Amino acid sequence: MCETMDIRNKIRFGVIGGSQISKEISKIAWEVGRLIAENRGILICGGLGGVMESACKGAKEAGGLTIGILPGRKKEDANPYVDIAIPTGLGEARNMLVIFNSDAVIAIDGSYGTLIEISYALLHNKPVFGIKTWHLYQDDIEDKAVIHCHNPQEAVSKAIQAVRSLR
Amino acid sequence: MCETMDIRNKIRFGVIGGSQISKEISKIAWEVGRLIAENRGILICGGLGGVMESACKGAKEAGGLTIGILPGRKKEDANPYVDIAIPTGLGEARNMLVIFNSDAVIAIDGSYGTLIEISYALLHNKPVFGIKTWHLYQDDIEDKAVIHCHNPQEAVSKAIQAVRSLR
Amino acid sequence: MCETMDIRNKIRFGVIGGSQISKEISKIAWEVGRLIAENRGILICGGLGGVMESACKGAKEAGGLTIGILPGRKKEDANPYVDIAIPTGLGEARNMLVIFNSDAVIAIDGSYGTLIEISYALLHNKPVFGIKTWHLYQDDIEDKAVIHCHNPQEAVSKAIQAVRSLR
Amino acid sequence: MCETMDIRNKIRFGVIGGSQISKEISKIAWEVGRLIAENRGILICGGLGGVMESACKGAKEAGGLTIGILPGRKKEDANPYVDIAIPTGLGEARNMLVIFNSDAVIAIDGSYGTLIEISYALLHNKPVFGIKTWHLYQDDIEDKAVIHCHNPQEAVSKAIQAVRSLR
Repeated sequence: MCETMDIRNKIRFGVIGGSQISKEISKIAWEVGRLIAENRGILICGGLGGVMESACKGAKEAGGLTIGILPGRKKEDANPYVDIAIPTGLGEARNMLVIFNSDAVIAIDGSYGTLIEISYALLHNKPVFGIKTWHLYQDDIEDKAVIHCHNPQEAVSKAIQAVRSLR
Repeated sequence: MCETMDIRNKIRFGVIGGSQISKEISKIAWEVGRLIAENRGILICGGLGGVMESACKGAKEAGGLTIGILPGRKKEDANPYVDIAIPTGLGEARNMLVIFNSDAVIAIDGSYGTLIEISYALLHNKPVFGIKTWHLYQDDIEDKAVIHCHNPQEAVSKAIQAVRSLR
Repeated sequence: MCETMDIRNKIRFGVIGGSQISKEISKIAWEVGRLIAENRGILICGGLGGVMESACKGAKEAGGLTIGILPGRKKEDANPYVDIAIPTGLGEARNMLVIFNSDAVIAIDGSYGTLIEISYALLHNKPVFGIKTWHLYQDDIEDKAVIHCHNPQEAVSKAIQAVRSLR
Repeated sequence: MCETMDIRNKIRFGVIGGSQISKEISKIAWEVGRLIAENRGILICGGLGGVMESACKGAKEAGGLTIGILPGRKKEDANPYVDIAIPTGLGEARNMLVIFNSDAVIAIDGSYGTLIEISYALLHNKPVFGIKTWHLYQDDIEDKAVIHCHNPQEAVSKAIQAVRSLR
């Protein structure tokens, strides 16, 4: 059975992104999930389809633990690769909870729901690593808070470094 | 490592109750937690002290899995026997989430926070089993929705029966 | 037009109760609303039908101001006597907001949703006045935090006294 | 006293933006608020300082009605130009409520909290008009959902047009 301290010390990686995705993005998400599990991290997500599901599938195939924080009221809404489904009944206000539950966030592709989560992460000083996702500008100057990465390996290893430097 | 389907099929028992408790109530909560784990259930709670902590301690001593849904923003707020801490940042609005995450609820002792959770459970048709907790009356007639039990054994076994009859 | 300080200094009376009600309860709620307006108070409620609607109707007939804090996402869900509809998208987690927005609470009849609101009010030390509503017992002893009243006049005048003594 | 139907038919303009602002931004926010009131709209905001306060001040100086949806639990947290303060106790999850309460949104300057609100607005198909605020890009292509405006007059008149075309 799971040891409490073992679970509690693991890094929690939030994986956020679109629910309608291409095969290319699905593969990226799957690999992010796999790398999180191989690095003994816990995968946190919104529990539904698209990036969330592909990442959970990758994590489970590598023997990881996955947590899905759902907008609805029923744990059965979660995709089949979520171990611990947390229904909230809060709609998209649950996006804030995804962030509070993550030590670092990896954003892949995504639309406005993902942008909400990126923004909550930046507001609450969580490190954010992006793959093919939003770039944010003010006055023609890019906000550099999101660290854009070229591939899953770069994103996961930079996320691990960032969390370790904060501990 | 944990098997997804194994975790997902387990019964989730919400354990709710006071955060300031007597030794007698602590022992009851501890035994409720132990019995949940022995029956291969998952313990859901608000993640803090008192009944929540004693129940989690009992569950961990019997090798169970515990989830704490916290009012604050930091997973570190959880008592030391919580495996999966879920910070929400919602204050006591998180009480609704404790209920959505439970298949059945066991209420032990408790004050107004517990009464909020009992009420959410009854509103959302979750079976509620009480030990030394609130009795609710309208027009001098007791509302019989809360099933009052004499001891942990009765509460846990009735909760298991109730959930099985709903599946 | 409305003067800010005038509106801000008014007492806010939360009126909570069932959404399916008898004619007798409807008349009581209507009168509570009317008395709140006659005493220059603001009526706060959950914005839907039953006690909420009857109380808002009474308040508007006496020229009062009504605020409805809705569980859904659309202000159009409010009953026709709500001046200021506040959609939340939070479902019944909005019950906590009804309480934070009230200086005192009058509970009329009601089922488990009302019990949630009574409990939030007691948890947050808001004075609660009941008419034909829940009585709460522990160990055969009634919890006296809810002040039970015989009629709208008693409830509204006691609520005014309670708020004044807190200011 | 306020007529219900009169209040309910008014356009609600969400005004979002930074809480730490320059004099230039403060003047823009003040003028947005004034124009909303002159056009008989209701100003919705997060109820605190910076853009929120300057916009409320402008609206009140033109005789308008202002609503502030607060992150905390106390209506007293609102800036002095808020008529109707709505405490929520939800922290920044209240940003979602600001959007549900707006027919159109005007974003002025702002940091990540403002970006959360812009994102919620776009997710829920509310028209968004920006003045000196975030620009959003994916794959080097700007997302054009936010309509960037040169001054308060342009933003308010485009917001009115957008809401009328949706009714």
